[in-house]
Parts: sequence; structure tokens; C-alpha cells
Amino acid sequence: MPELRQDIVTGSWVVIATDRALRPTDFSKVRAAEPETGDCPFDPGHETMTPLEVAAIRHDDTEPNSPGWQVRVVPNKFPAFEAGERVEESSAMFPRRAADGSHEVIIHTPDHEKSLATMTVEEVTLILRVYRHRYRANSENPDVRYIHIIVNHGRESGASLEHSHSQLFGVPLVPALVQQELAGASWHHKSKGECVFCRILREELDAGVRIVGETDGFVALAPFASRMPFEVWLVPRLHQESLDMISDGRLEDFAQILKGVLGRYREKFDDPPYNYYIHSAPCDGLNYEYYHWHLEMFPKLTTLGGFELGTSMMINVTTPEHAAAFLGSGLET
Amino acid sequence: MPELRQDIVTGSWVVIATDRALRPTDFSKVRAAEPETGDCPFDPGHETMTPLEVAAIRHDDTEPNSPGWQVRVVPNKFPAFEAGERVEESSAMFPRRAADGSHEVIIHTPDHEKSLATMTVEEVTLILRVYRHRYRANSENPDVRYIHIIVNHGRESGASLEHSHSQLFGVPLVPALVQQELAGASWHHKSKGECVFCRILREELDAGVRIVGETDGFVALAPFASRMPFEVWLVPRLHQESLDMISDGRLEDFAQILKGVLGRYREKFDDPPYNYYIHSAPCDGLNYEYYHWHLEMFPKLTTLGGFELGTSMMINVTTPEHAAAFLGSGLET
Repeated sequence: MPELRQDIVTGSWVVIATDRALRPTDFSKVRAAEPETGDCPFDPGHETMTPLEVAAIRHDDTEPNSPGWQVRVVPNKFPAFEAGERVEESSAMFPRRAADGSHEVIIHTPDHEKSLATMTVEEVTLILRVYRHRYRANSENPDVRYIHIIVNHGRESGASLEHSHSQLFGVPLVPALVQQELAGASWHHKSKGECVFCRILREELDAGVRIVGETDGFVALAPFASRMPFEVWLVPRLHQESLDMISDGRLEDFAQILKGVLGRYREKFDDPPYNYYIHSAPCDGLNYEYYHWHLEMFPKLTTLGGFELGTSMMINVTTPEHAAAFLGSGLET
Repeated sequence: MPELRQDIVTGSWVVIATDRALRPTDFSKVRAAEPETGDCPFDPGHETMTPLEVAAIRHDDTEPNSPGWQVRVVPNKFPAFEAGERVEESSAMFPRRAADGSHEVIIHTPDHEKSLATMTVEEVTLILRVYRHRYRANSENPDVRYIHIIVNHGRESGASLEHSHSQLFGVPLVPALVQQELAGASWHHKSKGECVFCRILREELDAGVRIVGETDGFVALAPFASRMPFEVWLVPRLHQESLDMISDGRLEDFAQILKGVLGRYREKFDDPPYNYYIHSAPCDGLNYEYYHWHLEMFPKLTTLGGFELGTSMMINVTTPEHAAAFLGSGLET
């Protein structure tokens, strides 16, 4: 059972989730090779190798937990958050609480070889539709205050399995980096009377030097203070606080620009490992109308060292202006 | 010339230091192999391959920038911070400033093969003496408000050269993670009338389950809310805010426990990559008597993914109690 522990100096919470790596000797396994393709628990026909599915998009007449699915959602076998038992008692010097919540895996496709960059826009749209569905379903969980959806693509980005998939974390608190964004967005809205992300969109489209692509509904841009080389944000033009507010019509648009930028990464860096995650308003019942959801992504080209890990200040070796020029701006549709 | 850019949403500063990787195609080089030993710029006889030395511990009668040194300090060839020119104008939406400051490399030994874990305590003591000296020297730089000393050991930890070395960053602001620690320590001191690190030492020595080792002057412990597997803090028993206050007598003690824990990492994980860094009070002239300097270290066994990078909340797969038991508590002297 995972637990949350708080650092009493900084106030930061850490998830201690030991089921994810049982013994020190397992770290060599963590760093070792992918299981053979034939053993992949995400392949069709291997549905019994995962926990029972909680949702799926399936062809007619196929049974849950059998082949015939296009996108399949299962609980993570080694969850960082789960509903459940209590932990040891907390104290002033050793504050802890249960890591209540949820942790799901969204298997993108039955095809072991495909990735988001090589799927059709229709296939990616289906996955994003499932994001919206699972976002809504997990919002109903009273333990969950924040929903974090990610992709780790490639072992060097933190993926433990190569088969294309997303993870959804239902977190029982609002994480520090999201709190910082909320505080900044709230301050800007109060003092300037405008959403800070709407303003960034307007100013960046005016400046023109950090734009990677545009669709009717989205702008892809290299942010001015990019933390990582070739970092790109996908920002919806419509001011909406939360991913689950996206309309059916915009899902395909979102798929198009997401696949477009991932295709550029693939082309320019030879299928690099990458990470993306979605920042969206908390689902704790409070008012976040000032916030504006978006997706942040970057290829894994460099390694965080003792400077970044010890200061939480990033050293980025590439300007976003260069990144935008190099990735190219031909993603318009 | 590196520059600092501020994210207007979160307020975080990022260092944009493009000299550290010139072109996108250079990323393949960054990920490629170490140069042949014969080409190492930190080897004796190769002193002209680095910028001119700013300090060294040398055998008598040897000239600067020639062989005969035991520990050698040079400016970083690709600095993240340096004294210098101005950057482009800052604006409300695009805030930036010069990355003024310093960035030095402390070459630990002329021996290309040695590391901190395999040196003698006397050799490590010399290096720590140089830390104190460079800390004091860089404190005099009016551009520098915070001094961050690190080791990245091994390529997977972010090291670009294998030859054992430290880096000292003279940063023109107090980085976010340090600010968080200062805020927590200040709050604890005001509300509890005691240094939070002194209290942690007392409570951890009482609890006994997270202690890795002790010397007369230092305690090595696995912190309660460890962010990383097998994270260890080295905390001086004497309450001092800043590294440069360490006495001559305690330097050897510090060397002994540092070498001891690094030796355990080496033994238990087969010479793993690791990072360490020192947290110390800012050198900006303000009063930080409530703070307590210390060193934080961890082997690089796992990879940060989209959860950690998108939330700044860590998922740690090993409890600190397990880490302390596994690393062993036999470091007493």
C-alpha cells in the first residue's frame, strides 16, 4: 500500500510506493531490457496479464478482458495511488497519510509496434476521447483532488513497457508545480483582468518566433522560459479550465496537433524518448475559472544533474526560438 | 552568454545556456561515448585544454597550469553563469536578465581512474578544503547570492566527463528549492524556537531506523520523506548555517563519512552513477542563523517521468527505513 510522506522542512509530499520495486536487487531489473514482445501484457490475447479492465473501446460482440478492443483501460498493477487501507500513525516530525486515489493505464492500441506519432489522427482521437472519459470518471472519486495524465515514451523517459500507453494518476492533493501555476494564473487574472495563458497565446502569436504550429483550435509553441530543450506546449485557443470540457469537435483537432508535434520529434531526433503531461484544474470542487488547461511535452535529450535536482532550477541548452525554428512551423491545417 | 528567463505563470527562473550544446545535432554527441582517456582535459599534462586555473593545491616548485597539482580549480568551459555582458531587454511578458555569476570545475585528482569512493580520506579532505576555499572566494563576488556545489558521477547522472570532479555554481539568485528549505527552517525556528535540522538529528537518532552512519561531527541518515531511492543526507551535528564555517578539524570527519557512504553505494550497486549537492545559506548578506547546512546524495537508479516532471512530486519506490538497513549502519568511527 503506497503512502504519502511530508518533508517537514519544505512541506513537499513524496509518494513512497514500494510495490513498484520490491528489493534493491530489483533495480538491476528496472534498468534491464524490455521483455520479449511475446510476453507484453498489453498485447491482445494477454488480457489476463493485467488487472481487469475498467473501460475499453471495443468492436461489437467482443467481451471485456478479451481481444477485440481498440483502446483499453486497466488499473496499474503497481499503483502509486489506490483506494484503501490506512497507514501508520502520523506525527508532527513524521507526517504521513494514505496515498488514496487511483492509477490507471490507458493502452493506446492493440498493435505493439505503433506509437502516437505513427497512428492515424482517428486513432489518436479515440485515445483522447478515452482521456476525457476517464478524467470525468475519476473526478467522481471523492479521494481524488487532481488528475494527472502522462505519456512516458521509451525507457529513457521512464517507461517500463514499450507498448504505447498513457497513465492517469488520481492524486489526493494538488501537487506543488500545479499549485504554483494556479497561484500565478490566479494572480494574473486578479491583477490584469485576463487569463495569463490567453495572454501568452496572443503575445506569442504576435511575436511569431516561438510558434511551432496552429490548428483551428490549438496553438503549439515553445514557451519563452522553456525548462527543457525542444519543450512544446499545446494550448487550446478556447479558454477552458479543464480537459474534460473539450468538445467532441475539438478532440480531433487536439489529436492532429499532438500527432503533428510528436511526428516532428520522431523525424528530427530519430524516435527519441519523450514525456508529456496535461495540466488541468483540480477536481476538488473549488473555482478555477481563471485557469486554462494545456499539454506540456519534451523529448528526453539531456539528463537532470545535481544542479537541477538540488535547486529545482533548470539549465536548458537550447533557446525556444531555436527549438521552434528547428521543429518547423509547418503544422498548420 | 547565458541568460535567465522567468516563467510568468510560476515565477520560476530558467537558465538558457546555449554554449553548452550548440546545435540540435549535438545532442547525439551529448548522448555518445566518453572521449578516449588520452584526450581527457582533466588529465595532468593537458592543463592547456581547460581555461586557466583559478586555484590549485600543488607540490612545491610547480607552475600554475602545469602538472604537479593534487586538486585543480578552473572556470567551466561552457558556463551556466558568468560575469559579463547584458542580455536583450526584459519586458512584462518576457522577463529576462543576465545569468551573472560563476561556474567552476574542481578537478579532484590527477588520477583519471580514481573516484571519491576509492581515494584515501586524506585525498577527500583536500577536496573538501578546496570547497571551503572556493566557497569563500565566490562569496566575495557581488553578483553571487547563492553557491551550489555538486558532483555528478557517471554519465547517467549528468556528468559529461568521467574524470572525477565537482562543479561550483555561483548563482545570482536564491533557487526555488533552497528558498523552500529556508522558508520551512525559518518558520520552524520562529514557531518552535529550535533549528529544524537539529531537531531532525535528535529525533532520527532516537528513532534509530533511518541512520546510516555517525562520526564525531556528522550523522548520515536516510530522510523520512526521501525523494529518491537510497537518498542519504550528511548533517553536521554542530549547528552552522554555511559550509564555509566548517573548522579544519571537522573537514577530515566530513571526508570520512562522505567517502563512507559513497563506498557503500559503490559496493551495493556496483559503482552506480550518483549525484550529490550541498545546501547552505545564501551569501547575500542577510541573516540565516536559523539555517543548517548539509549534503544530500542519491544513486541514480530510476528515471524521472511525466509524473515527477509535471508535478514536482516524487514517487520513490524504496522506503528510507529499508534504504538505511540495506546500506548498513556500520559507518561509525
